[in-house]
Amino acid sequence: MCTLITNIGELTTNTDAGMLRDAAVLMADGRIAWVGSADAVPADPAGFAEIDADGRAVIPGFVDSHSHIVFGGDRAAEFEARMAGEKYAAGGIRSTVAATRAASEDELRARLRAFIAEMRAQGTTTVEVKSGYGLDIETEQRLVRLAAEETDEVTFLGAHVVPAEYADDPDGYVDLVTGPMLDACAPHARWIDVFCETGAFTVEQSRRVLEAGTARGLLPRVHAGQLGQSGGVRMAIELGAASVDHGTYLSDEDIEALAASDTVLTLLPGVEFSTRQPYPDARRLIDAGVTVALACDTNPGSSFTSSMPFCIAVAVRDMGMTPVEALRAATAGGAAALRRDDIGIIAPGARADLVLLDAPSHVHLSYRPGVPLVHSVWKDGVLA
Amino acid sequence: MCTLITNIGELTTNTDAGMLRDAAVLMADGRIAWVGSADAVPADPAGFAEIDADGRAVIPGFVDSHSHIVFGGDRAAEFEARMAGEKYAAGGIRSTVAATRAASEDELRARLRAFIAEMRAQGTTTVEVKSGYGLDIETEQRLVRLAAEETDEVTFLGAHVVPAEYADDPDGYVDLVTGPMLDACAPHARWIDVFCETGAFTVEQSRRVLEAGTARGLLPRVHAGQLGQSGGVRMAIELGAASVDHGTYLSDEDIEALAASDTVLTLLPGVEFSTRQPYPDARRLIDAGVTVALACDTNPGSSFTSSMPFCIAVAVRDMGMTPVEALRAATAGGAAALRRDDIGIIAPGARADLVLLDAPSHVHLSYRPGVPLVHSVWKDGVLA
Repeated sequence: MCTLITNIGELTTNTDAGMLRDAAVLMADGRIAWVGSADAVPADPAGFAEIDADGRAVIPGFVDSHSHIVFGGDRAAEFEARMAGEKYAAGGIRSTVAATRAASEDELRARLRAFIAEMRAQGTTTVEVKSGYGLDIETEQRLVRLAAEETDEVTFLGAHVVPAEYADDPDGYVDLVTGPMLDACAPHARWIDVFCETGAFTVEQSRRVLEAGTARGLLPRVHAGQLGQSGGVRMAIELGAASVDHGTYLSDEDIEALAASDTVLTLLPGVEFSTRQPYPDARRLIDAGVTVALACDTNPGSSFTSSMPFCIAVAVRDMGMTPVEALRAATAGGAAALRRDDIGIIAPGARADLVLLDAPSHVHLSYRPGVPLVHSVWKDGVLA
Repeated sequence: MCTLITNIGELTTNTDAGMLRDAAVLMADGRIAWVGSADAVPADPAGFAEIDADGRAVIPGFVDSHSHIVFGGDRAAEFEARMAGEKYAAGGIRSTVAATRAASEDELRARLRAFIAEMRAQGTTTVEVKSGYGLDIETEQRLVRLAAEETDEVTFLGAHVVPAEYADDPDGYVDLVTGPMLDACAPHARWIDVFCETGAFTVEQSRRVLEAGTARGLLPRVHAGQLGQSGGVRMAIELGAASVDHGTYLSDEDIEALAASDTVLTLLPGVEFSTRQPYPDARRLIDAGVTVALACDTNPGSSFTSSMPFCIAVAVRDMGMTPVEALRAATAGGAAALRRDDIGIIAPGARADLVLLDAPSHVHLSYRPGVPLVHSVWKDGVLA
């Protein structure tokens, strides 16, 4: 099955080929088969389905490398109270844990699929999905199993917070996470993650979680630097984490260590937007040589957007990124944060995950904030 | 033609009836015929088309009371330079004037219709459209005539900026605007507007424009307080303007005067977002008793969003509005800014302009920023 998109006004390849004008892309068998000038499309005796982009822009599908989209309930009332400057008494993550434990498997699956469809319609062709609202063996296993039905990028985040029943024994909870919970979840996951932050897990607890996960063949990624500086960033780098996520609060040493490492820093502007926290300074990070990704962190507490274009617009407005840097972070950056070289680029051999924008340029993703600009989405060469 | 929407989880009426749960709305002949509990739907022997909202929220259609959507070209390169912190040499509004003068009527019409359709898909059922990128008699008349094909709320904004050919004679340009240009445009317009700001028109020039327009039966509205304080706000109130738009920079006296008047203050968060300017303090304005509206100010220079949900999310995050205040400003507030009592509310007799959200509550418009949450839109009782 071959599809040719031609008459592309602007094609973002994220490769050394750069940004092409008057371009065309040929997709075959779920992969990119050819990229080049619209004047030089290879002849194909069998013909191919042809899409006329009519001068519109084509970009790689967004790679959203950080989401929490298997859960029950929502926390709209908590959001509303926060925006009114009120303290909200309800239990934060723990209230979502209660709703998730109470939800049926069918409810959780339907909700997850709806989020994935919503993301796809907004141009996201790869999404990482974390567990972390179960916090008991049975529910965490259900969450990673459900996530694995929908994506290859499944993250076991049993160490999201300490559940109420272990409030007096956090190390006991770490024993559970690194023992029988990990045994139950590892077969369904690719990644191990931990929320290394005051109020969640210490650096030493986090290290135990990540080392237990890597011993089971999972790859490490870490939540750190959301609420304050800690040793979490350098511990993550030391353990070879693919990504440190949040990174709002980083020391100069953290930034130097990130720049010298293979660890991506994944910025989550939806969190700062929805919690009225200060934005990280992406400009400084990029100038220091750090590889950055952008992701939505879709979750019912701190960031309920699922819109990568929205995150791009905020990153440009409030984090000092240029439009092309933000697009790269939302595509190739996300791919790097997932240690993938087959997505986030438009090049022969890569997966045929593409977005046709209803705009002449990628700049419009930030120039026209909030406007749905996704015209068409192909995932593995198939029109969504 | 009757349509019943039932099983509405949350219905925002913007009337004394407040926010209804488990509600239903009946539309007949383009108007709201009945609003009440889903348990008490009036019997209709002929039956009606029934829509099951399945617990979703219904809100009044957005009233976007400030837009500039008849123009040629775009200014993506200017936006990109601004976001990179660079000075951009090209001519701002004047470059759009050149592109608009050069565009054919068919091109302008097609573009305008595409913007209106884009807005409709995002829940906007009434949009005000300004001229102001012609700045000569022929082109300004074309713009108001085209706008009048698409909306009842047409604003003659010949006094947008002084065009290059009058750079040395701004008063001469005001003579043109208040004389033959007004003669040509007034038959197609309902409103007269002026950009009263340093670099555009002085308070006295603005007064001349507005008085000439009102003498021709047009109703006044004013751009003021975008870039700095001026006497424009109080002049607008004195002349009975329906709305002062922007209002980022207001003195205490301006705020007192607005609160004591029938003049709405229309806030345009897309401008501050897209120009990295400080946001107006909507909290302070509302607490002072000012009636506020929210609008997109869709234009190719300072705010190219057309998304009222995006403006609501930014107003909540950055201007201190609660979700319900922001929704009200984007619906009933916009209606007040257009001196309309038949839109912006859901009540018997009002126009059947409704939005069914793909969410259980209006809160999700800010809780889920950037996510397209508009499920269905009815304009005059007809599904868009």
